[in-house]
Amino acid sequence: MNVSELDALRRKYMPVLDAALRAALDYPSEHIDTPAQMLHYHMGWDVQEESTSSLGKRTRPLITLLCAQAAGGHWRTALPLAVAVELVHNFSLIHDDIQDGSELRRGRPTLWAVWGKPQAINAGDALFAHAHLAMQSAIALTPETRLEALSVLDQACLALTSGQHSDIAFEISDRVDEEAYKEMVAGKTAALIAAAAELGALAAGASAARRENYRAFGHALGFAYQVRDDILGIWGESGRTGKPSGADIRARKKTLPVVIGMEQSSGFRALYRSSARRVADERYAVTLLQECGARAAAENVEREQIELALTSLTCAVPVGKGRDALQALTQRLLGRMD
Amino acid sequence: MNVSELDALRRKYMPVLDAALRAALDYPSEHIDTPAQMLHYHMGWDVQEESTSSLGKRTRPLITLLCAQAAGGHWRTALPLAVAVELVHNFSLIHDDIQDGSELRRGRPTLWAVWGKPQAINAGDALFAHAHLAMQSAIALTPETRLEALSVLDQACLALTSGQHSDIAFEISDRVDEEAYKEMVAGKTAALIAAAAELGALAAGASAARRENYRAFGHALGFAYQVRDDILGIWGESGRTGKPSGADIRARKKTLPVVIGMEQSSGFRALYRSSARRVADERYAVTLLQECGARAAAENVEREQIELALTSLTCAVPVGKGRDALQALTQRLLGRMD
Repeated sequence: MNVSELDALRRKYMPVLDAALRAALDYPSEHIDTPAQMLHYHMGWDVQEESTSSLGKRTRPLITLLCAQAAGGHWRTALPLAVAVELVHNFSLIHDDIQDGSELRRGRPTLWAVWGKPQAINAGDALFAHAHLAMQSAIALTPETRLEALSVLDQACLALTSGQHSDIAFEISDRVDEEAYKEMVAGKTAALIAAAAELGALAAGASAARRENYRAFGHALGFAYQVRDDILGIWGESGRTGKPSGADIRARKKTLPVVIGMEQSSGFRALYRSSARRVADERYAVTLLQECGARAAAENVEREQIELALTSLTCAVPVGKGRDALQALTQRLLGRMD
Repeated sequence: MNVSELDALRRKYMPVLDAALRAALDYPSEHIDTPAQMLHYHMGWDVQEESTSSLGKRTRPLITLLCAQAAGGHWRTALPLAVAVELVHNFSLIHDDIQDGSELRRGRPTLWAVWGKPQAINAGDALFAHAHLAMQSAIALTPETRLEALSVLDQACLALTSGQHSDIAFEISDRVDEEAYKEMVAGKTAALIAAAAELGALAAGASAARRENYRAFGHALGFAYQVRDDILGIWGESGRTGKPSGADIRARKKTLPVVIGMEQSSGFRALYRSSARRVADERYAVTLLQECGARAAAENVEREQIELALTSLTCAVPVGKGRDALQALTQRLLGRMD
């Protein structure tokens, strides 16, 4: 399958997914509607002509729908689960932006930058509840399957908070090795994409073993995505990543190139541990990372994870257009997921 | 039933409830355990000899257990639902303390005051996920009933965020009337206690009509509790309430006496709207509230809600010790719930 066919499926699913997301966030009329306004802003629905052409958005729910199809089910059966995954992702984005103090997302002021942190924390909480309600509404699935889906989702949320805890803790620690990095990323990024894939297979009625394969596929895909994001956070163009280049180094984020640089380059280690935070130092730090092979090593890890994702997908014995689209999506990794 | 018998039931249930809460917060070993440490601190489990004698703690899950019993079921069947209610309550406390900037709770530094706001937001999110997982584990109930319980819980969470949104928004608004106040309290406090009561009845297999009666009972009880809390926030002794007296006025909280005072006393209105924030002004504000009858009016609303709670309870046709304990708990309102 070439990429234009993947995009064709995406174009087919997106309007239905978008309508389902909007329906999930419709507050009953007796509620005061301002939290709803906040969530509409965060989801980008207040912008009149939204582009649906970029692959960058809604990739997690797309994975759920494609996995359902690849596992022999109908993508519409998985729609409420895809909605729940996307809402949980956005819930975590709202809280992450507060935790990181990020003022911009997708080129717009973040929710807290507009409404203040107290209201933004609260709106994120509302979104978390909406995600659960959306999943409970999956009436095409048996009650048992719905409960299993909810368990997969909440276990992913727990892993998400565990990874996020490490991510925050690592900002003030200079002793983070590759193992600790991997554990952090397994929670922060891979867990939800693993759940997105597994939930698609679950909706299609796949066996536990097949579900595990889809899960492994999503996990590796998510891992690769995070490593790519780490690389872009240092060497990416800010126009493409949506954040200033060098921002991750400035925020003391323990991304993979930094973790590798700490192990491989005594010059980088010394510079990074020094308290000086001049722009010239940042540029020199990037040069040192490049020279000690941290970028190449990170790209190697990314490639390994993409191969692992493709192998796991093969083990899941996917079928039809869903299979082709998942392969195309993986190989095209990654014009940035979100 | 006299109060000592209510306390006897409470003493019987508390160790089992406490063990179930601890089990719900046990992280699987592959997770980094620091979020768990934070949650243990918040729940007060790091304190060696915890007093279980005060009625002030764990009142929401106690209501769930007593309602299950009063509706003819066994209290143990409702245990996972009671656990979920208490965890959601504590999740909301963690986030509320961040939103309000409160540095003390139950006489100890709040979670964010110890670990910082980013980690505390994240620990609250973990607790929210734990609450859902606890409820999903209610295997004594049919899958259909578990899904219904989850829906009741998440609807309550949504109402909670709606009420909390208003509570925050009202801090910077001087035009809050009694109707807006009631809508805010219906979400902020009453919704979760209503859910606590309804979930007990649901676990006991009560009919939809009976569940609605229990729900109405919990709603009125929660409303009365909030009004009592409002009164204590102005006229309570700080040793008993755990927060400095006058704190609510200083924080511009739109509590019921304040809302009534704004309507009834032009002197209070003028003083409250002036930007001066001297301690002498606070004392004078309290005097004006007392003089215009705001305290008496608020106590009237509280009494009405207690009567409504008792009537709703009667309509639910409760039985046995559960009924007696719920009546005693309502009449004793309220040596502070939490």
